[in-house]
Amino acid sequence: MAQRIPDLRAKMGERGLDALLVTHPSNRFYLSGYTLDDIPPDESAGAILITADGSYLIAGATNLELARAQAVGFEAVERHKQDGLAATVAELLGRHGARRLGFEENATLVATYHALEEATKGTVELVAVGELVSELRLIKSEDELARIARAVAVTDAAFGAVWPRLRPEQTEREAAWLLDQALREAGADANAFPTIVAAGPNGAYPHHEPGDRPLGEGLPITIDMGARVDGYAADLTRTAILGEPTDRAREVYRAVLAAVEAAEAGIRAGMTGGAADALARGAIAAAGYEDYFVHGLGHGVGVRVHEPPSARAGNEDPLPAGATLTIEPGIYIPDWGGCRIEDLVVIEEGGVRVLSQAEKQRV
Amino acid sequence: MAQRIPDLRAKMGERGLDALLVTHPSNRFYLSGYTLDDIPPDESAGAILITADGSYLIAGATNLELARAQAVGFEAVERHKQDGLAATVAELLGRHGARRLGFEENATLVATYHALEEATKGTVELVAVGELVSELRLIKSEDELARIARAVAVTDAAFGAVWPRLRPEQTEREAAWLLDQALREAGADANAFPTIVAAGPNGAYPHHEPGDRPLGEGLPITIDMGARVDGYAADLTRTAILGEPTDRAREVYRAVLAAVEAAEAGIRAGMTGGAADALARGAIAAAGYEDYFVHGLGHGVGVRVHEPPSARAGNEDPLPAGATLTIEPGIYIPDWGGCRIEDLVVIEEGGVRVLSQAEKQRV
Repeated sequence: MAQRIPDLRAKMGERGLDALLVTHPSNRFYLSGYTLDDIPPDESAGAILITADGSYLIAGATNLELARAQAVGFEAVERHKQDGLAATVAELLGRHGARRLGFEENATLVATYHALEEATKGTVELVAVGELVSELRLIKSEDELARIARAVAVTDAAFGAVWPRLRPEQTEREAAWLLDQALREAGADANAFPTIVAAGPNGAYPHHEPGDRPLGEGLPITIDMGARVDGYAADLTRTAILGEPTDRAREVYRAVLAAVEAAEAGIRAGMTGGAADALARGAIAAAGYEDYFVHGLGHGVGVRVHEPPSARAGNEDPLPAGATLTIEPGIYIPDWGGCRIEDLVVIEEGGVRVLSQAEKQRV
Repeated sequence: MAQRIPDLRAKMGERGLDALLVTHPSNRFYLSGYTLDDIPPDESAGAILITADGSYLIAGATNLELARAQAVGFEAVERHKQDGLAATVAELLGRHGARRLGFEENATLVATYHALEEATKGTVELVAVGELVSELRLIKSEDELARIARAVAVTDAAFGAVWPRLRPEQTEREAAWLLDQALREAGADANAFPTIVAAGPNGAYPHHEPGDRPLGEGLPITIDMGARVDGYAADLTRTAILGEPTDRAREVYRAVLAAVEAAEAGIRAGMTGGAADALARGAIAAAGYEDYFVHGLGHGVGVRVHEPPSARAGNEDPLPAGATLTIEPGIYIPDWGGCRIEDLVVIEEGGVRVLSQAEKQRV
């Protein structure tokens, strides 16, 4: 982590920035180690200000002591009680004589932006920096890959412990709770995201929230889950079918599994996100289900459960070695159900390294 | 819920708005019943657009079917795949001939705002509406109060089940997991927020995250937890002391409890948030700990765990009857520890109705 601030200052130098305000919560953790969560959209546990020779973590009085304890190498500064973040930033910028302030327009609220304009009126230029900070997170370090691998292993273990215990009469909610308990028992600090269990027709909703529907027999049950370990996420989807699959369930499941296999066999560093997506999409099209694969193939996973890169149609950016990617094709048929299978992989020069080891059902 | 859109249209009329874009996730749920969560700060499960005669829920393809199923009375519209929310909003505004669009500047990202400006160039005026929508949530309906009361009862039951099982050798993390399990077993759909267990010196951090410290004896252990039930949150804090309290632990605990009692005895509808805060602050000052009460007295709770009103110094807004409020004074002493006790109450004309029934330790 020690190298992250110097790397960021180098990028600031390239853009001619005297200072940079970091409001994205994942970037805040990545740069500082400060773990507190926000209450979105407008209640932030803190923001980071980096200048040429200063690193500040600005937090409300409630969280100031925790910021001080966690953010090594940062000066913890109390956010102005009445005038908020903008007043504190303006004061620190004045202290450093900073004139060009970068800000993350994809992680800054309009009200905050206007307050910054007001508080620095005529003295500071505000420069939208896009993904300048987030891009630092794209290529994972060895330490980060080790944390992600631990989160994946915990998730695999939790799925493996619960899968044999699933029964047709259990509800989605009961199954999700078994999985959440297993995640914690396997060593998760928390869920990386709310566990999805979607049975029967609910499988048509990729982000279904578990309810009172019994798991049932014959139709796919989509299970999407992930542990958070040491600040890093895992993301795993398996589809289970209890009892004898219907013909359509078998056909859909096999098409999705073939898409996973095609993507994992074909993806390598340098391929575009769009081309990666096309590998899986082609396999699903071959089975006649291309209209029902309604999302992209996958996304990076790290501090955040959805982060760059993105493997989806139209993305011309090459997938870099050292990035993570989910391979998660799915088929979603309204009023019938759906199926998704997801592995988490690391992009390497010659191909992908599949982290996820949870067993896939053979139907 | 059926009355919420007409109420909102009336407020839009007062401000001369042809249309209103709702991006705050709690407002989105409140108006539509659509339950999906975002991945903050920049990945939204959907946004609502209200015009004089149209109600739209705009969501990505992945979530469109769920939006359609959940958001009764709304037309679910797919967010433009390449050009995003702004392009979809611009198209809908054009269809309705809308010229003045309200937006929530406290829940809209700068990038989204600039994209809206670009997509509607010269044809639509963007008007920041502040808390126009959130204000609808301030006074709770009977149905909302019933949901909150259920969330409170579940939380009380979970605390009551675990408190007698706490032991000095358990770690904060183990205790938090017992509490989380008890919440779910008592009927929570989920945690309303991550459970806090802060033992010994960690009690100095109001938002401490549970770690490997044993609960220990003699010093306060702060436990802050809440269930989410039917979309509504509870928020409860109890401080436990295992074994014989130290003299200071007893003194601090009694000062905080006296502050709770003073606030609950004195607060009534019409009192300002600042005056409510002062009731508790006075009790803590009387014990000599005023420098260590580093946050406000409390906040409303509803769809969101922190929402208006706010009881803190400097707030001149009157607390209205029918709002909820946490009464949660605390004392936080660096390198020693801390104590917080929190009830959730409903503001009524003649006083407060205390919802929280979890037992408070007597020391």
